[in-house]
Amino acid sequence: MSPGTRHPKIDKVSTLSASEAKWIEFQKIDWTDQTGRARVWEAANRKTRGKSGIDAVAIASLLRHPSRPPSTIIILQYRPPVDAICVEFPAGLIDASESPEVAAARELKEETGYVGRVVDVSPTIVSDPGMSTANMSLATVEVILGEDDEEPEQHLDSGEFIQRIVVPLDEVYDRLMAYSKEGKLVDARLFHWAAGLHFAKMHL
Amino acid sequence: MSPGTRHPKIDKVSTLSASEAKWIEFQKIDWTDQTGRARVWEAANRKTRGKSGIDAVAIASLLRHPSRPPSTIIILQYRPPVDAICVEFPAGLIDASESPEVAAARELKEETGYVGRVVDVSPTIVSDPGMSTANMSLATVEVILGEDDEEPEQHLDSGEFIQRIVVPLDEVYDRLMAYSKEGKLVDARLFHWAAGLHFAKMHL
Repeated sequence: MSPGTRHPKIDKVSTLSASEAKWIEFQKIDWTDQTGRARVWEAANRKTRGKSGIDAVAIASLLRHPSRPPSTIIILQYRPPVDAICVEFPAGLIDASESPEVAAARELKEETGYVGRVVDVSPTIVSDPGMSTANMSLATVEVILGEDDEEPEQHLDSGEFIQRIVVPLDEVYDRLMAYSKEGKLVDARLFHWAAGLHFAKMHL
Repeated sequence: MSPGTRHPKIDKVSTLSASEAKWIEFQKIDWTDQTGRARVWEAANRKTRGKSGIDAVAIASLLRHPSRPPSTIIILQYRPPVDAICVEFPAGLIDASESPEVAAARELKEETGYVGRVVDVSPTIVSDPGMSTANMSLATVEVILGEDDEEPEQHLDSGEFIQRIVVPLDEVYDRLMAYSKEGKLVDARLFHWAAGLHFAKMHL
């Protein structure tokens, strides 16, 4: 926590009516299943999806430095829905007219200060398809650093409080486990990525 | 698609009112941010969370066979919120009085037929913390197979249509990319896991 800031806190949680919701909405989905039976499913939907057809982008960065091990950047930020500091990949909603690639470069720069080359953009993937329509793309961004480069400045919006951490790839899994033990909540997607790295080391 | 079944389809999507919703609910979260400013966040919440405090469990299985490469199991199932066949880890909601470990063994057996030993249960991780309260745990289950073991039978509930696929670990990433090209939607958590495996192979 930076000096001069206080711990965020939840004051009240109440039921949000459909007419009051600005960012998300509930869908009642009437569908016919594989046997021809009429069924109903309930889902949450973001109202903000733009031209790309994709809600959000997350960034797996690969920092290459002449004398340090290959690393990635993770961020810490308070998330009201889970009332905790979350540990996540840098990420953000894709603006109305942006491509996932442009959004990835923009969000990485805003949230971490680092500038890199987008070397891969994943297919559209779905965040929690049993419960919501939310979808996203995972971009891989390569950042080339010089020996004496200083840590760049973040470009946060007012009201954004994001801490960035550079972590060597082979320490990511253990670092996430340590954050969990401290009471922080790790984003499931970042955790799965780190679990994949860890699994590969043990079983491939 | 099995013989005798038809393609599921969406008949109608309408706004779900708060009073009508059975499985999920909307929360209006009044909170105070790091500068002391009063703010509002909107989130979706599952109504089904039980004693464990965790909504769901997903299973990364490790199949060990005397003469085949180490493999995992992924499943294909239609998901109404995204109107597509999704590619996911076996997973399910944790019943009211279950532990994540018990739920993992149960879901793996129901959805895939395979029985194994739960060798790891992750900390609680959050599925999409900018939008929902949903949380989960990732269980790792080791399944030891004999040379001539036949594929076991699934134990699906009526109304569940789930196809299981055994994939060698070093083919998972490419397989997910191929499913995406066919128009299936890969779950973000499974995709991140596979991306972690792939990233490790290239950069560690």
